[in-house]
Formats: sequence, C-alpha cells, structure tokens
Amino acid sequence: MCELLGMSANVPTDICFSFSGLIQRGGKTGPHRDGWGITFYEGKGCRIFRDPNPGYNSPIANFVKTYPIKSTTIISHIRQANSGEVNLENTHPFIREWQGKYWTYAHNGQLKGFKAIPTGHFTPVGTTDSEHAFCGLLHVLQSKYKRKPASWPAVFKFVASYADEVRKKGVFNILLSDGEYLFCSCSNNLYYLTRRAPFGKAVLLDHELEVDFKKETTPNDVVTIVATQPLTKNEDWQKIEPGQSILFHFGEKIF
Amino acid sequence: MCELLGMSANVPTDICFSFSGLIQRGGKTGPHRDGWGITFYEGKGCRIFRDPNPGYNSPIANFVKTYPIKSTTIISHIRQANSGEVNLENTHPFIREWQGKYWTYAHNGQLKGFKAIPTGHFTPVGTTDSEHAFCGLLHVLQSKYKRKPASWPAVFKFVASYADEVRKKGVFNILLSDGEYLFCSCSNNLYYLTRRAPFGKAVLLDHELEVDFKKETTPNDVVTIVATQPLTKNEDWQKIEPGQSILFHFGEKIF
Repeated sequence: MCELLGMSANVPTDICFSFSGLIQRGGKTGPHRDGWGITFYEGKGCRIFRDPNPGYNSPIANFVKTYPIKSTTIISHIRQANSGEVNLENTHPFIREWQGKYWTYAHNGQLKGFKAIPTGHFTPVGTTDSEHAFCGLLHVLQSKYKRKPASWPAVFKFVASYADEVRKKGVFNILLSDGEYLFCSCSNNLYYLTRRAPFGKAVLLDHELEVDFKKETTPNDVVTIVATQPLTKNEDWQKIEPGQSILFHFGEKIF
Repeated sequence: MCELLGMSANVPTDICFSFSGLIQRGGKTGPHRDGWGITFYEGKGCRIFRDPNPGYNSPIANFVKTYPIKSTTIISHIRQANSGEVNLENTHPFIREWQGKYWTYAHNGQLKGFKAIPTGHFTPVGTTDSEHAFCGLLHVLQSKYKRKPASWPAVFKFVASYADEVRKKGVFNILLSDGEYLFCSCSNNLYYLTRRAPFGKAVLLDHELEVDFKKETTPNDVVTIVATQPLTKNEDWQKIEPGQSILFHFGEKIF
C-alpha cells in the first residue's frame, strides 16, 4: 500500500515537520520504499518533487525536508508499489491541467478492473491503477462541465460521487487539489487534525523531533493535516469514516 | 528576453556543467533574474524544478547544479519577464500531457496578439504569451491527431509549421520535448553543438569551470546541447538559422 499526507492552511506554511515524519516510513520505519513525491502550490503554480527511490535516504527528500517551502496546499505520497512498476512515471502525485488549474492527486489503495474506466482525452502516462482513475475523474469532470464551474465546492461534491463509484473496484483513499481546495476521500485509513490557537507542542511518532507551534505561528493561523496514519503521538487525530469525503479550504472544513 | 538550454543524448547524461554556466546568467552574468526552470526526463516520467527567484543564488538551482540527475532529454529556461508577472505559474518549462506523454516546453521571445490563438481544452494557467502559444500548439495537435500518431517525426514536422505561423506574431524561439525527442525552432538566437568521440575539454564562458569530457564519457556517447547563446568558449557552436526547426533524437539530428 502507500501513505498519504496533505495540508490545507490559511497562511503559507511549510510542512518540514510532518514530512520529516512521513518520509521515515519510506523505507525506514515503514515499508513504503518504492518512491515518494510532494506537490507544493504557490498561487496558481505548483512545484512537484518526485523520486522513485526510497524516501528515507533520498537526497531530494532530504533537500525538501530541510528547505522550508511555504504553501497553503500540499499533497504528498510515499509508495509501496502494487500496480505498475517502480519508476518515475508511476510516482505520485500525478498532475494534469483542467479549467486553467493544475490538479494534483495521490492515491492509496488498489483497484480491480480499473482499465475499464474511460479516460477520454486524459491518457495515463504510466501504468498504475491510481493514475488511470485520476484520468477517469478528469474525463468525467470535463464531460460534465463544458464551461468554468460556478461553484468549486459543487465540483468536489461531484468528485465525491465519482470516488464512491471507483471505491466499488477496491480501496480508494485519495487526496486531490486544484491548489486552493484540499479534497480527501476515505476507503479505510485516513485521519485529519486541525491546528489552531492556542497552539501547543507536537512530537513525531517516526522520528525524534518535537516542535512548539506556538513559536512558529500567529494566533490566526489554521493548519489542517490529513494523513493515512497519525504522524504525532500527542495530538487528537480524527479518523475519517470509510466512504466519507471531506473538503478543506484554507484549513477549514467545507463539507 | 530569456535564455533556453536543451540536451538530447543517447545515454543518460547529467547537465551540471552546462546548467552551471546558464544559471549564472540568471541575475549574475546576465539579466535573466525572473525565474528559472528545468525538466529532466527519466523514462516516460519527468522531474521539473522551477523557481520564480533569480537562478544564480537560488537554493533549488544550487541543488540541481550539484546533484547529477542523469537524463537523455533535458529542457531548461531562465526568464527575463516581458509578458506575465514574475510568479511560479509563469515560470517555464510548462507541462501538459498529450497522447500519454508529458510534453514540456520553454520559449524565448515575445508575441503580439497571442490571445487570439485558440487553445481548446488546453487552458493556460498563467498569463504568459509563451504558455498560451504552447496550449495553442497542443490544441492543433489534438485536432489533427485523433489517434496515436504513427510517426513522431511527422508530428514534429507539423509542430515546425505551427511555429512558422506563430512566428508571424513576434519572436518565437522554442524548445519542446515529449521525453524522447528534442525539438527546437529558431526566430533569431539559437545555437547547437554535438559532442562525440574524440571528446575534449570544454571551458564555460560564464563561470570558472572546465570539464574534460574524455573522463566523463564512453566512446559511443553522443550528446547535443542547444542554447540561446554558446555556453563554452572553445567549442564550435552551430548557429540555427532564423525560421529553421531542428529535431534531435538521442543526440542525433533527425531533420
């Protein structure tokens, strides 16, 4: 399987702390050694760092861990391959442009019969079930919305219904973003946590690292973290229910 | 304006030497301080590093300069903005998927009346003439090829005719790749150089750096570099003629 990590915040925030925990599971404290990737949005643009090598000792991951890139929306993934070879084109997050936005997406799970999902003009580059389902999603979005949608939350409601359909083919835990919203849909394992004032200390589960968010934040900051498994040992992570989809916008839950 | 750098090689080769020269022009030996970017293909996948900050002192550029990522096809760009703000979404290379390949592209020049170019389903995310013309190109490709093309060189011949049309709107020096081919089209400034055995020494123009390719290569290696201006002082760079388009494949010129 794989692990997911997402962030939605109302101020540009770095993810060095959480990423430092997650990346240990990329071959050290966890078996997800078949690559890792991370997308940082900055305005309408985004940066994606990806590597098909194990994350815990990747020089690129080490750079990402230590160079604080601030963003309001981040998606990350560490991979334990089950569908598709270990190579760069099969490494999440995947990216496509739709409606003048860069959509990025990462998936944890496994789908049966995924090749039957129509993808229209969005052709998978790699061979994973994950990318195929992402192309299928963009295809149904493009078929439904011929023009720029009036309401983005309504689009994500539609994405939730697509996720419910795909879930019939297997396990489909996903993170999806257009740079502004962070959408997550849960099959079995997904947790979230919203940090806001009064901020406290957090201690990672996978790495000897503690941070005092009081020193790193201002009182108005709202930062939500979504992850396959809790990353810290002393905070109250909320389990997302199987079949549940949640949308975050600048750290706040929309639905 | 901007500067372009491309590489096509028959063995995975790093571009640390050429990139070290180019990036100096990103605010130090040249005025191109409005961002930089580079795409490295690896199989069908690619890595893009981009930064809207000046390249010569960018921590990410410094990482790219010192960490040898080996690739057979590379596109890089340093920006001096004329159309579109300085931000991440306006930073080259741009990327889109078409026909199950990631296409990346960078442009040097300026186009008048570019908004009249139809882009179909490929919507620009940023506000540059460059990205708009790229979306226009993908739109005409998608309109012409309903199925996977039988011959990729024929596709690039068609791209050359598109470039001839766009060139009527201004200056259009471009690099384009699908990961396998490196296409370049010249309005005014573009040079290339093919290194093959017997390899010799090369000395950068912009930075005190010399490399002895004899020590870095095997006798069968073929490596072509394309650049807006020559990057070395002791090699015989070929000027590409105004209006000329060239296609490289694994370092060799196809047309």
